[in-house]
Amino acid sequence: MPFSYEFARPALTVDIVVFALDEADLQVMLIERDLEPFAGRWALPGGFVRVEETLEEAARRELQEETGLVNIYLEQLYTFGEVERDPRERVVTVAYYALVNLQGHNVRASTDARNAAWFAVSDLPDLAFDHEQIVDAALERLRGKLRYQPVGFELLPRKFPLRQLQHLYEVVLDRELDKRNFRKKMLSMDILVELNEIEKDVAHRAAKLYRFDKAKYDRRTRGGFNFEV
Amino acid sequence: MPFSYEFARPALTVDIVVFALDEADLQVMLIERDLEPFAGRWALPGGFVRVEETLEEAARRELQEETGLVNIYLEQLYTFGEVERDPRERVVTVAYYALVNLQGHNVRASTDARNAAWFAVSDLPDLAFDHEQIVDAALERLRGKLRYQPVGFELLPRKFPLRQLQHLYEVVLDRELDKRNFRKKMLSMDILVELNEIEKDVAHRAAKLYRFDKAKYDRRTRGGFNFEV
Repeated sequence: MPFSYEFARPALTVDIVVFALDEADLQVMLIERDLEPFAGRWALPGGFVRVEETLEEAARRELQEETGLVNIYLEQLYTFGEVERDPRERVVTVAYYALVNLQGHNVRASTDARNAAWFAVSDLPDLAFDHEQIVDAALERLRGKLRYQPVGFELLPRKFPLRQLQHLYEVVLDRELDKRNFRKKMLSMDILVELNEIEKDVAHRAAKLYRFDKAKYDRRTRGGFNFEV
Repeated sequence: MPFSYEFARPALTVDIVVFALDEADLQVMLIERDLEPFAGRWALPGGFVRVEETLEEAARRELQEETGLVNIYLEQLYTFGEVERDPRERVVTVAYYALVNLQGHNVRASTDARNAAWFAVSDLPDLAFDHEQIVDAALERLRGKLRYQPVGFELLPRKFPLRQLQHLYEVVLDRELDKRNFRKKMLSMDILVELNEIEKDVAHRAAKLYRFDKAKYDRRTRGGFNFEV
């Protein structure tokens, strides 16, 4: 039973900022647009919300269709509703951000044959629509979260050396951290499990591997911890 | 130039959780619905987003129309998009939360003659739609924010005794705090200005008044502080 809606409806989309970490930088997944407006420009993966799917379902469907990514950490970021953000008509977009461990996922070009690629957040091309603003908001959220929630572990493989965890914090927070202090603080939080394994196939001296202990984290904290670096 | 939109569009609304603080409890503003569905039930103020207004403009317009509240602290909370959340048709709602100092604002019944009233969050009536879930999310956000941002000051008059600030934290966090510790921690954060004034017209011994020093806060912190209680 449709009800009276006296005004024209904005269109509703989802857009997803997918973050991943490589040895050098924090990366964002972009799609090359093949249609106007902004044809040839890079944009976030995303698309229209269908009437029969939730917002998160729409985000996961678009991600799968455009990048092949499935089963990844996904969280709602913010809803962007500036009146002129799409030159065609009024479009409101619910933005999500996603965190991906590059070792666990392969990204492929989209099924609809558009080009998908990773870009370093420190060196993004000009983006379509207000997508630069959406990336900035996602980055700010990620930086904030890293300080008080263990969300960053989603960017790492399941087993990692402390060096890689420090690299994650350094890249996301965009500053160098003291190795000794970092390890001391991280270990004192008692949310890591030291494994009986070391790195394999590395050129440098193989380091001990750790994993994140989510159960311990959940028991020890309620409402987040505070990681002051 | 409207573009091709192959699927039916969800309707888009805003809903606002308006918090205020009185001597006893944290309050939420509700509106009595006069139309089906949920006629006679209490609901959050809100309504449809128009094509020519931003989401925040829609929230401020609805607040003014339904409660008379203007110029208040307003922040986007979360967008709720469960498929069956409105029994009429698919409606996605962008929820906001607002903080009001009761001494500075009068709330009136709405212009469209519906009943508006404050309810203690600890004793809410059955709400329409998924509005209980939206209130819960707003409360959780408020509790989190109070720990690391000075957002709670929006609920207080401009000048307040420390007793009232402690009351705010106790009511929002829903637990008693030690007076000595609270004062020590709050003053050590150095974001309050002690005024040369005391309370007027109070039955108990008049206490010294303070105000929040936003400029100092902005200088001293970047990205929030951490108030561990």
